[in-house]
Amino acid sequence: MKQKHPLRIIPLGGLGEVGKNMIIYEYNDESIIVDSGIMFPENDMLGVDYIIPDMQYLKDKKKTVLGIIYTHGHEDHIGAVKHVLDIVQAPIYTTQLTRGLIEAKLARNGNGQRADINTIKAGDQVALGPFMIDFFHVCHSVPDGIGLGIHTPQGLLVHTGDFKFDQTPVDNWPTDFARLAELSQQGVLALMADSTNSERAGWTPSEKVIDQALDNIFREASGRIIVASFASLISRMQQVANTAEAHNRKIAFVGTSMVDNAKISRKLGYLKIPDSQFVSLEQALKMPPSQIVLMCTGSQGEPSSILGRLADGRHSQIDIQMGDTVILSSHPIPGNEEVVYRTINRLIRRGANVLYESIAPVHVSGHASSEELKLMLNLVRPQFFVPIHGELRHLTQNARLGVQVGIDPENICVVENGQVIEFQNGYMRKAERVPGSYVFMEGSVVGGLGPDTMQEREKLSQSGILIVNVILDTLTGALRDEPEIHSYGFYLSPETLLKQTIRDAIPRANGNLKEALLKAIRAQVYEETLRRPLIDVNIHRI
Amino acid sequence: MKQKHPLRIIPLGGLGEVGKNMIIYEYNDESIIVDSGIMFPENDMLGVDYIIPDMQYLKDKKKTVLGIIYTHGHEDHIGAVKHVLDIVQAPIYTTQLTRGLIEAKLARNGNGQRADINTIKAGDQVALGPFMIDFFHVCHSVPDGIGLGIHTPQGLLVHTGDFKFDQTPVDNWPTDFARLAELSQQGVLALMADSTNSERAGWTPSEKVIDQALDNIFREASGRIIVASFASLISRMQQVANTAEAHNRKIAFVGTSMVDNAKISRKLGYLKIPDSQFVSLEQALKMPPSQIVLMCTGSQGEPSSILGRLADGRHSQIDIQMGDTVILSSHPIPGNEEVVYRTINRLIRRGANVLYESIAPVHVSGHASSEELKLMLNLVRPQFFVPIHGELRHLTQNARLGVQVGIDPENICVVENGQVIEFQNGYMRKAERVPGSYVFMEGSVVGGLGPDTMQEREKLSQSGILIVNVILDTLTGALRDEPEIHSYGFYLSPETLLKQTIRDAIPRANGNLKEALLKAIRAQVYEETLRRPLIDVNIHRI
Repeated sequence: MKQKHPLRIIPLGGLGEVGKNMIIYEYNDESIIVDSGIMFPENDMLGVDYIIPDMQYLKDKKKTVLGIIYTHGHEDHIGAVKHVLDIVQAPIYTTQLTRGLIEAKLARNGNGQRADINTIKAGDQVALGPFMIDFFHVCHSVPDGIGLGIHTPQGLLVHTGDFKFDQTPVDNWPTDFARLAELSQQGVLALMADSTNSERAGWTPSEKVIDQALDNIFREASGRIIVASFASLISRMQQVANTAEAHNRKIAFVGTSMVDNAKISRKLGYLKIPDSQFVSLEQALKMPPSQIVLMCTGSQGEPSSILGRLADGRHSQIDIQMGDTVILSSHPIPGNEEVVYRTINRLIRRGANVLYESIAPVHVSGHASSEELKLMLNLVRPQFFVPIHGELRHLTQNARLGVQVGIDPENICVVENGQVIEFQNGYMRKAERVPGSYVFMEGSVVGGLGPDTMQEREKLSQSGILIVNVILDTLTGALRDEPEIHSYGFYLSPETLLKQTIRDAIPRANGNLKEALLKAIRAQVYEETLRRPLIDVNIHRI
Repeated sequence: MKQKHPLRIIPLGGLGEVGKNMIIYEYNDESIIVDSGIMFPENDMLGVDYIIPDMQYLKDKKKTVLGIIYTHGHEDHIGAVKHVLDIVQAPIYTTQLTRGLIEAKLARNGNGQRADINTIKAGDQVALGPFMIDFFHVCHSVPDGIGLGIHTPQGLLVHTGDFKFDQTPVDNWPTDFARLAELSQQGVLALMADSTNSERAGWTPSEKVIDQALDNIFREASGRIIVASFASLISRMQQVANTAEAHNRKIAFVGTSMVDNAKISRKLGYLKIPDSQFVSLEQALKMPPSQIVLMCTGSQGEPSSILGRLADGRHSQIDIQMGDTVILSSHPIPGNEEVVYRTINRLIRRGANVLYESIAPVHVSGHASSEELKLMLNLVRPQFFVPIHGELRHLTQNARLGVQVGIDPENICVVENGQVIEFQNGYMRKAERVPGSYVFMEGSVVGGLGPDTMQEREKLSQSGILIVNVILDTLTGALRDEPEIHSYGFYLSPETLLKQTIRDAIPRANGNLKEALLKAIRAQVYEETLRRPLIDVNIHRI
């Protein structure tokens, strides 16, 4: 039967840029939202706190939203929940642990009461207008992740979310092959699959390999053990806790987000640690070093994190000491390499034995590598393929994998955020573009950071600013006082000839005095320093 | 026979930080310098052009220097040659290609005439006071590299420089195992070995693997091929030229440093490309796309490089077009990942088929991996081991490799720049510390960038600056005019209440008006924006 309305896919986040995943599925003016993540700024996005998807399209269509689905509890999928709820009044559907993490997040922002959250579990079906959604379990580096089978009037979509095919995950709950095969049997119109690790050959190792690595390290360590990881890596907490127990060590979690997430996960049964194994940081610090493990944040080298403070000797309660073993159970996010390596170097300098991904198998990725991605494609056998979750290079590489397993290149669609895709009666086409770029969050200002402001920051960061105040007599136009010069982030020798330059320039200026002064100052400063700081000239006439 | 004077090793660069390698070997007030490199700034070293070793120690001992040896022509080993020659008058000893690269460098800086350079070749011996130096050939990613056997009254040192054990290098000139074995036979007091890749397991692949990868890519490509790499990777130029010839393509080098280095290397016989294979960029652009290869710089994503401009569509002569194949034959230097990936994404967006290290074997490292480092240790069999060339984490890991092959941990010395090591009568000890930290170069200012300036830049880069000018009546202390407010890198809503805040604060201020205004402004700005820009208040009394 021919359908009058196309099924529309509106990617607002996660296609073409790292993180901040957000996709709207729309049919005949009814829609669902899948995920709404944030992204952390790159090194040259100066002063930006975090980045959210551009939600202009959502603002225009807010009445059409029937539900908001979250696939798992990582920041790049749930981080912008508050911003979505600022626009849309619709119920949230997600699993128990993800719900817990979202609620904790909203509570921290003082938005706890607003959310109408429905707990679903893998295997459930939910009908939302023209959409019937099948939730199936996927493995990822946070428990309770789901992928979606979305039945629509135009056909069945499979949306993987972040996933890997770990056969031996920590929670013994592998990705649901059977359910995927069942969906496949029904005939899949399009697969939307995670592309994060499409550049990696082979299979992502199982989380199981970490058990062995931790066991080896714990056996060798005679002093304190400190494990740094992501606060959302609940399965890593479980692995560290298990190894600690096997080696007669107690575990203490350090840092708000780590403590919070451990608490939620234990309460909900996703983290199984007996009370007897738990100690507080205060208790831990009184125990013999060989009997404790501290687990903390800071594996990305963040200076304000626990590990960052330990590396710099700025933690109020703990000092790294000779004999400590520090494990970074993580992978540096691109852009963080320098600070992560600096943290490692500083910990070594303080006497710690530091173990990290490059020299010990203490971390595995939560995302499927290329062989797993090909397996997903072969399992689901979609007619169309839309790579999601990744930069353009990842999407492009995932598309190549699609071609390798025999998908017609014409049926693969690599698009970036804002490019709408439509499916109608077995055809796919690119439709219009909608706003799909970064929205910078800074302090309380949503998107107030324009390119001019960023360019000024860039210039300020490179050469600083020189501020010149000149007071002139209104009548004679002559200087009433010495020119006053000061600077920030810029060094000018005390022997500078700049005051003389200014004194000389004033009587010679025809027309715009400010322009003439700027020009003379700029030339003199460049001659003396070979730099071009921002120059701010204030002329006061009295 | 007991020696009265210790042999002293003074590391000024490359131990504990990336790049900028520089070591002084000293005996009884006579010394030699090995290498003097520069380092490029990390992302948070704002406005720094480059970093040189702290040469304070050299300034104090400049009369003692008998010679300056350069092991190979990379910037992290030769980059600070100008700064050394500003201090020391001593002859340089290096190989032909390194000499060519140093001369080109000095000529660009207008220092060509000053250098007294002696060309040596692998196999030569040079006597400099108490030091007798054996030069032996090493493979690295630039041809004509050397390692050093340094015979001293305290014993024989082996200084590897950057090296790998490539059995099939592009120039068919492997690292000189025989000479190393010969030195080993004489009994080696201490080995100073490259640590750059000590974290990598196994062997670094041979440069040969790139030939096969390039051949595959050239066979598939129907349009233009653009290869980006380092200007100093002469062997990569040879590989690309060879593959081009095999596939009936002409080669054009693009960009000053690439063109310069190709010219020097061809003249000196290190790059063998027949004239008939060469075309200029202008000629290349007139030829059918299937008949040309362009080789350019920019593999690190530098915005001002050729590749950076191609990615942004800012090159005056070339535009990336559908069907172009772009190869990044390089590895992102830590800290450059974001810009490299952004460049790749932008090239893909413009329609290029982009191949890079993660998805095709188009690059290999020039540094020995851990098995090669162990081979070096077993070949040289030193009594003492001092890992060099690397961050603390690399040095520490290289030390672990030393322990694995049986070196007494007591005989391994991991130190950072500035920590002097002394050898005397078969003993090693850590002696005094000398200045060994970063010296930032910015414009014409050597080391004028203090921590205050850097902190101001950091603050300016994060939140910008707000400048407030207030003109008061000297007699009454009242405002003579509206407060004048402007800002850079900071956004303040036009509805700001700041002027009122200032008007209110002036009559209320007791004591220091400037402090009172700063405080009131800071509070109001934070309330409105949740940001803390730098605030500059100028009070003029008339």
